Amino acid sequence: MRLDTDPYLERYAARVRGMSASAIRALFAVASRPEIVSFAGGNPAIEALDFGAVEEVVSRVIRDSGRTALQYGIGQGRPELREHLVAVMAQEGLTAHADELVVTVGGQQALELVASCFVDPGDVVIAEGPTYVGGIGALTSCQADVRHVPLDEHGMQVDLLEELLAQLQREGRRAKYVYVIPNHQNPGGVSLSIERRQRLAELADSHDLMILEDNPYGLLDFAGKTFPSIRELVPERTIYVGTVSKTFAPGVRTGWIAAPAPVRDKLVLLREAADLCPSSLTQMVVEEWFASQPWREQIDAFRDLYRVKADAMLGALETEMPEGVSWTRPSGAFYVWMTVPAGIDTDDLAAKAIANRVAFVPGRGFYADGTGGDQLRLCYSQPSPDRIREGVSRLGELLHDELELVHAVYGADGAPPLRRRPTDPPAPRGQEPR
Amino acid sequence: MRLDTDPYLERYAARVRGMSASAIRALFAVASRPEIVSFAGGNPAIEALDFGAVEEVVSRVIRDSGRTALQYGIGQGRPELREHLVAVMAQEGLTAHADELVVTVGGQQALELVASCFVDPGDVVIAEGPTYVGGIGALTSCQADVRHVPLDEHGMQVDLLEELLAQLQREGRRAKYVYVIPNHQNPGGVSLSIERRQRLAELADSHDLMILEDNPYGLLDFAGKTFPSIRELVPERTIYVGTVSKTFAPGVRTGWIAAPAPVRDKLVLLREAADLCPSSLTQMVVEEWFASQPWREQIDAFRDLYRVKADAMLGALETEMPEGVSWTRPSGAFYVWMTVPAGIDTDDLAAKAIANRVAFVPGRGFYADGTGGDQLRLCYSQPSPDRIREGVSRLGELLHDELELVHAVYGADGAPPLRRRPTDPPAPRGQEPR
Repeated sequence: MRLDTDPYLERYAARVRGMSASAIRALFAVASRPEIVSFAGGNPAIEALDFGAVEEVVSRVIRDSGRTALQYGIGQGRPELREHLVAVMAQEGLTAHADELVVTVGGQQALELVASCFVDPGDVVIAEGPTYVGGIGALTSCQADVRHVPLDEHGMQVDLLEELLAQLQREGRRAKYVYVIPNHQNPGGVSLSIERRQRLAELADSHDLMILEDNPYGLLDFAGKTFPSIRELVPERTIYVGTVSKTFAPGVRTGWIAAPAPVRDKLVLLREAADLCPSSLTQMVVEEWFASQPWREQIDAFRDLYRVKADAMLGALETEMPEGVSWTRPSGAFYVWMTVPAGIDTDDLAAKAIANRVAFVPGRGFYADGTGGDQLRLCYSQPSPDRIREGVSRLGELLHDELELVHAVYGADGAPPLRRRPTDPPAPRGQEPR
Repeated sequence: MRLDTDPYLERYAARVRGMSASAIRALFAVASRPEIVSFAGGNPAIEALDFGAVEEVVSRVIRDSGRTALQYGIGQGRPELREHLVAVMAQEGLTAHADELVVTVGGQQALELVASCFVDPGDVVIAEGPTYVGGIGALTSCQADVRHVPLDEHGMQVDLLEELLAQLQREGRRAKYVYVIPNHQNPGGVSLSIERRQRLAELADSHDLMILEDNPYGLLDFAGKTFPSIRELVPERTIYVGTVSKTFAPGVRTGWIAAPAPVRDKLVLLREAADLCPSSLTQMVVEEWFASQPWREQIDAFRDLYRVKADAMLGALETEMPEGVSWTRPSGAFYVWMTVPAGIDTDDLAAKAIANRVAFVPGRGFYADGTGGDQLRLCYSQPSPDRIREGVSRLGELLHDELELVHAVYGADGAPPLRRRPTDPPAPRGQEPR
């Protein structure tokens, strides 16, 4: 049974078939309509913040330090803020010195600065497959040759990484770095096992390899567990990226890089060329938040909220999904990664889902190589548990219908494997738009 | 007579000889010491803002729209903000549509995105000589081949631009664009004459040339005059850059680009790769400022303040400077550009000036080609008129002493022309720091 749709959604759904970057943007726009249950955007549930406290924080910043907050700052970011960020890292058991840090415009600018710093067009960078869309964006804008290493439930398959490194060596090539999101990975919803972290660190040493460790979700483990950081294992080979987007708020666009001194100096120069300095106002708001508010308790509150939502989604998936559909079981953060049976293309499915008033992001956007067409990402951070169950139920109905169709067309043997669709043209630097 | 110095300043001065990027950063740090009259930084005089009003603005943003202000936004920037920025452009007689605008992290990110969009390593970009340090930074980080066209009191010498274009044509090369700051140029303190604007527009047409028009200071003319924009003359060939840093506050890091649709789309993609989206919080603070505050009167107040400071500086220069020193006479904004006689190197002079408790930025930083060693920039936006007179007097004494030394060494014929010093190594993308 299909739910009623409206003409707007149908026109929209037509547009989404064959997902392009602009169609993904359109998906997020339409997914915000109230009748749609959106598992698309990865927005944190900032409604759990104490907005009265935030108002007091921003007022105090202007009242006490308006002249500083509204003026230019320095490219590396305010030392006072960097001290607070060191305390956030310590909360996960990481040690760092404020001097090592560069404040960035969210984690995204950190990924872009590192790519700009290291990648010449055609250079190999290794990433998990699937990986963060914005990480791919930063790499393709620098025209990197992105090679994926598949995930399983224990994170990046480090034995396959080792094979890839050997293969690159045979080709006479070398990866500029390995980009990894070890904790509650976006979009995979899995974490890198401790054994694999150690093996990754060993490979970094034996292959003279740099690791880009991106850690937006490390403090959002449902059990309050923390993981050993790769930076702690091989500090001189690791560039670490953090953000306050998931522990405080993304609207302040505040992230950071912790890097060895020569890399840090280069990154500061690149950042000055990129945007001079981070906003003094947002930096001081973050400082004042960490200085005056119970930020650890706020993180606990976020974590509890996401655990309830994850439970709602995992429970509903168990009852609603047809046979042949599989998914990951997150132990923290926002994401479930789903694989659908052969015969279903998740770009097409996304369009039909919108018409059925549920939204997700199809899988191809999380790979640089056009694979992922049988996968999709469900994000449960925003809807309420009831809406999550409703959305999963709508998706379940759709998948039941789709599988019936696949069986009717292909019979009991099932459909042939999915074709690999060409990726969107990336937006490389230095080429005039036509 | 030399003023007393302290050991800290002397050690510092030693470091500054042979200005590098990090030494310039150190200069700004030391220039903020209270005993130094700083003509170095180009910080606006935001102490003229009504901070009570700003506090009310930031409180209201969180109180009324906290959930939006603290969440992610869209890459192009908020439509509501873009409408206000269109009104700011209209204040200068410019017409634009909010759809054409991309909100950026200050004007600097605008310059960097445009460079990223158009420049391949080795591509020629033409700029005024001298030009904005951050403009050079954006270009050298993309490994542009920057060619300068000298300024005179009427701005860029467009006849020399024509010669350069002809020369490039003979070389079989083509400039990706011409970067120009037509109004109250930083650091030149001069504006492009109307005749030259028209000639520049004609050259753009006849040579199929793109213009990057950077306009941070257009509303800060001391007489309240506005100039015809190059964008109005050749809209389809112009990418326009604006900022609220000088009309409201730099701490909110808010600028914008107005560009033809295909360029705008490419810039939005690059910006999403660069930092995802601008801060919703700072965007909404700027919106609320323009929606609820007397922003036009605030700009008038800034303008009056800078006129008084400019008068103080120009008057003091007239009485304090020795023969042979020349400078520009700004009719708006922040800057006086000074040329000193042969025999004096302004990198060395900057170090001595610090020891004499006055600071400026030596000229080489404003050229990509190592010239400018006999020039320097004085910025009068921050000190009070009395401090400005004191600082000019200290600089005058120093220059008198230096010229005495030059005459003692070289006699009446004067010193040989200045050597061209190699520039700092730029920070190109894609190369590992060593």
